[in-house]
Amino acid sequence: MQKVAVSIGDLNGVGIEIALKAHNIIKQWVNPVYCINEKILKQAAKLLNIPIPDDFVTFDVEGDFKIKPGIVDADAGKYSFESFMTAINLAKDKKVDAITTLPINKESWMRAGIKYKGHTEVLRDVFKKDAIMMLGCEEMYVALFTEHIPLKNVADRVKKDNLIKFFIDFHKSTNFHKVGVLGLNPHAGDGGVLGDEEINEIIPAINEANKILDKEFYYGPLVPDTAFCSRKGRFIAMYHDQGLAPLKALYFDESINVSLNLPILRTSVDHGTAFDIAYKGKANTKSYENAIKYVLNHKTLM
Amino acid sequence: MQKVAVSIGDLNGVGIEIALKAHNIIKQWVNPVYCINEKILKQAAKLLNIPIPDDFVTFDVEGDFKIKPGIVDADAGKYSFESFMTAINLAKDKKVDAITTLPINKESWMRAGIKYKGHTEVLRDVFKKDAIMMLGCEEMYVALFTEHIPLKNVADRVKKDNLIKFFIDFHKSTNFHKVGVLGLNPHAGDGGVLGDEEINEIIPAINEANKILDKEFYYGPLVPDTAFCSRKGRFIAMYHDQGLAPLKALYFDESINVSLNLPILRTSVDHGTAFDIAYKGKANTKSYENAIKYVLNHKTLM
Repeated sequence: MQKVAVSIGDLNGVGIEIALKAHNIIKQWVNPVYCINEKILKQAAKLLNIPIPDDFVTFDVEGDFKIKPGIVDADAGKYSFESFMTAINLAKDKKVDAITTLPINKESWMRAGIKYKGHTEVLRDVFKKDAIMMLGCEEMYVALFTEHIPLKNVADRVKKDNLIKFFIDFHKSTNFHKVGVLGLNPHAGDGGVLGDEEINEIIPAINEANKILDKEFYYGPLVPDTAFCSRKGRFIAMYHDQGLAPLKALYFDESINVSLNLPILRTSVDHGTAFDIAYKGKANTKSYENAIKYVLNHKTLM
Repeated sequence: MQKVAVSIGDLNGVGIEIALKAHNIIKQWVNPVYCINEKILKQAAKLLNIPIPDDFVTFDVEGDFKIKPGIVDADAGKYSFESFMTAINLAKDKKVDAITTLPINKESWMRAGIKYKGHTEVLRDVFKKDAIMMLGCEEMYVALFTEHIPLKNVADRVKKDNLIKFFIDFHKSTNFHKVGVLGLNPHAGDGGVLGDEEINEIIPAINEANKILDKEFYYGPLVPDTAFCSRKGRFIAMYHDQGLAPLKALYFDESINVSLNLPILRTSVDHGTAFDIAYKGKANTKSYENAIKYVLNHKTLM
């Protein structure tokens, strides 16, 4: 069975509740190793009034502080960062096959003096590689060709050579059989009338990538506003909201976040610390379960 | 009861089947007047093997030709145009309260030498006004601030003054209570880090429009990739796919198309002629029923 290091996230948020509640389910799929020390784990379990399962295997992360449910706090921020770094190191040392991350709080990281804005930035810095961000669930996965940039800068980035590199990197990182590539413009440009990036950049890039891969792996460009009508598939979106607005409209609770094109596989829940419901027994474990299941169902790259 | 002129669409497509099949439902909501002559109606009904209801009120549109199911044809194109112009004229003369259009075929219009690309272009030309395009169903309506333009041109159009004009025009055209305005950029700009149109254009426009309207009618800017998670609401999207990709992912079959900001109210099905299933008894009447129901539920502007 594969081993997965679970970074425990911000202990003032919903992460630890999810890890404890879902343990009996996920242990059927993988061997989890939770990056937390026994003392803090006991404090959290007591607050939650959830017993710690006998087979809840931990890997010590030093640190001791008082858990304050729902509060932005430097100690909790620092600990969640240490837990994440521990998980990364376990993966780098090949002691686990993948890592799954529970949510951290950006403001708590800031208070703790951590210079990163989030998990993905750490991964890019540690591995000096462009991680590919993919979100979704078994029914539908969407990888983002461009991510956190202003909309006005998107069209300039849609260039044949960038696309080919992305297509080849993405293909290496998944075990998908076919992937639909979205157009950039309304109606995928409508033959050039509504924009020419499809004709000049996207179509040539699809053809070239398929030639390099020696199979019809990529198809498209798909008309963006009807591509998701079937509510299933594997897609590459040209920009953040093109892919994520329909995905989240359809599959918000189930979705996970996967970092591809790195030396390690990292999956994550696609929600935050949910401070408003922390330690109230209301946290939904679906996204976390799916994040673990992704490791089970997909080849790792280690 | 309100009177609605129904333009019959391309007779080689699914429109007439939908009109005949849905008549007994929609006559409970409005008094429909079908823009078609008896002779062609009989030909279609015979081909479909659907009896013509006794109370199927028609308004004569001259013309006689052989129906060819699923075929692009100049005669059918010309007739669908005449039926549409007849419906417009009935509305202009205030003989009906609104018009509902069944789908035409653009290629058939071209073959018939009609210079317009579609219904909306005709309406803009006849009334010399910027029609506002809104799509959706009772659960969710999305109006488009920009429509059929290349993505790279969208950001330049998002200007405070254009937005205010659109907001005021849109408010006049609906009976909605609250309307969410989407941001342009990922995370609605994240405080300016991912684009500044929210801060410089959209927020000032929302505030100014609400001041003019003397109520908090518009709210936002909403984060585009989570705005649709509740699967309901009334929204203004900054561009075509931002609004239509999530809408169609959620509500493809139910959705209708409404032309606002015109002297007449026009609603339409949100699908095409579906030549592949024409005269096969398979046409779905849901979108048409909703297009008629919109007239019933919303104030007309005549």
